[in-house]
Amino acid sequence: RATVVIEKETPENERPETFLRSADESHSSAAESPSTVRARFERMIREAQDEVCAAIEAEDGIGKFREDVWSRPGGGGGISRVLQDGGVWEKAGVNVSVVYGVMPPEAYRAAKGGDSVEKPGPLPFFAAGISSVLHPKNPFAPTLHFNYRYFETDAPRDLPGAPKQWWFGGGTDLTPAYIFEEDVKHFHQVQKQACDKFDPSFYPKFKKWCDDYFLIKHRGERRGLGGIFFDDLNDFDQELLLAFATECAKSVVPAYVPIINRRKETPFTEQNKAWQQLRRGRYVEFNLVYDRGTTFGLKTGGRIESILVSLPLTARWEYDQKPEEGSEEWKLLDACINPKEWV
Amino acid sequence: RATVVIEKETPENERPETFLRSADESHSSAAESPSTVRARFERMIREAQDEVCAAIEAEDGIGKFREDVWSRPGGGGGISRVLQDGGVWEKAGVNVSVVYGVMPPEAYRAAKGGDSVEKPGPLPFFAAGISSVLHPKNPFAPTLHFNYRYFETDAPRDLPGAPKQWWFGGGTDLTPAYIFEEDVKHFHQVQKQACDKFDPSFYPKFKKWCDDYFLIKHRGERRGLGGIFFDDLNDFDQELLLAFATECAKSVVPAYVPIINRRKETPFTEQNKAWQQLRRGRYVEFNLVYDRGTTFGLKTGGRIESILVSLPLTARWEYDQKPEEGSEEWKLLDACINPKEWV
Repeated sequence: RATVVIEKETPENERPETFLRSADESHSSAAESPSTVRARFERMIREAQDEVCAAIEAEDGIGKFREDVWSRPGGGGGISRVLQDGGVWEKAGVNVSVVYGVMPPEAYRAAKGGDSVEKPGPLPFFAAGISSVLHPKNPFAPTLHFNYRYFETDAPRDLPGAPKQWWFGGGTDLTPAYIFEEDVKHFHQVQKQACDKFDPSFYPKFKKWCDDYFLIKHRGERRGLGGIFFDDLNDFDQELLLAFATECAKSVVPAYVPIINRRKETPFTEQNKAWQQLRRGRYVEFNLVYDRGTTFGLKTGGRIESILVSLPLTARWEYDQKPEEGSEEWKLLDACINPKEWV
Repeated sequence: RATVVIEKETPENERPETFLRSADESHSSAAESPSTVRARFERMIREAQDEVCAAIEAEDGIGKFREDVWSRPGGGGGISRVLQDGGVWEKAGVNVSVVYGVMPPEAYRAAKGGDSVEKPGPLPFFAAGISSVLHPKNPFAPTLHFNYRYFETDAPRDLPGAPKQWWFGGGTDLTPAYIFEEDVKHFHQVQKQACDKFDPSFYPKFKKWCDDYFLIKHRGERRGLGGIFFDDLNDFDQELLLAFATECAKSVVPAYVPIINRRKETPFTEQNKAWQQLRRGRYVEFNLVYDRGTTFGLKTGGRIESILVSLPLTARWEYDQKPEEGSEEWKLLDACINPKEWV
């Protein structure tokens, strides 16, 4: 598999207005010209980052996000925000990034027309996304992950008339160590509401996609109780998908924070904590072995600390640990093995 | 990449005399006929398992190994032994396994002669090995890993006259969280002695191979301080390599146990423990992302609990943690980034 190459990042002292190359900011140089999808998507994810971080800090009460800003010489960059060892969260990372890169021409999916004998050249691409994993301390308070991203490729250089290509991807999913039905139902209900505003096919399709995607294949179990997930989405109107991704990102706080508010102070035993730590081990297994964003990031030279902020502060692996049938731990595992409908 | 298929394993109540198919036990049916390399290698790794487990239990003083035996319907099987939460070791796994499998014909490395148009059929293979990871509790006591394996393929079915192929692989390496020069020197000295009995080129070559193999590429650092590693070794006499692998396996206890004896009761702080846990996180990253045995095992349906027993009981990931320059933690990290000569 050929490699994507991304330049090394440089730390910055201040957040720039935008990480875009100036040509990407609007369709023409006139001040009133409409913004590009690239520009509107960047604005959306940066607003979502501010909104989620503010809600997390408010709910946490103690922890504050530390911010790291970086840029790349040829354009692009990112903002990583991490809250560690707070009152409620053990580790919470909320990152945005904008990447200008070059990928092998095989990645251009349109059928290459005609009998050109020219070898296609490397293909410039643009990617922007928000990515977040929130690991609470209390074993009854679930981990949340969400990620929304927008991707464009230019036409290959030897096919000047060929169209640009674009895709949206993303999702929001919940990973508890214990099941509280009202929590899981609330979470899925909010995802469904966001989906239903756009297309009735979205929730059932993206709920199943999520269950399929987060499978830890070697164990035959999912890392958690799902949510929604979609990738390479371009078979709907581009404006509709931009609005859909925006709605999903805006749904993160109402889907998640009320659950944390209910569970963050629940008393727990050492056994509860050990079970949470074992489930965190599964989270690590999924992310390092299967997660596309993580494995892609590790191979292409992305900013390692931003990529691996998704890993929990602590995790545990016991040999051949199996919960007792019928126990609360067993119920969670069963729902990870046999995904359920929650709404 | 085409897949290797291995049958599902069945638990057994007792250790069999051998996991070999009966045709593999000796070169002919006469009682005095010499044993095959397959048979002698299996005997060697089972003796090594007994010897290492006895030494670990003796040094631990409290923990006992739990044993799981399994077999596969078409031949092969294994013995997993795990000591968890002992007096000295947090988690210690020592496994032997014998595998009869089938791999894609591309794996047959000999140049395929002539202009045969027949599609080559799937290729039967045999693999036997001992694999062990020993994670102590005390942050000044190092983790040890060793693995010795023997591999054979039959000739492809459409090339009946072609030779069988065989390889040896393996190594022993040390992963401390803190450097004690006398420990690391002793460890490498024992590896060198084992190598030097066979060929003066072995230690320098296999020491470098080890430093190269255990690189966590996305961090540019090794998981530990190395030792020896070799793979696909068949360019020496088969008997010499069998004797060499045997010598290496026998060197595990004298290379490692004296170090543990010196360090197991060293007083330590919470900071020492947190640093050990961060280094355990690196161990997890290497094993899940890069280790060939682990990634191969996860993909081919090996016994998951035996494969992942290499993961530590507990591990930790802090965002952007960097040890202070000149500190003991920094010295360890520096030696993982810039491998040193220890003997």
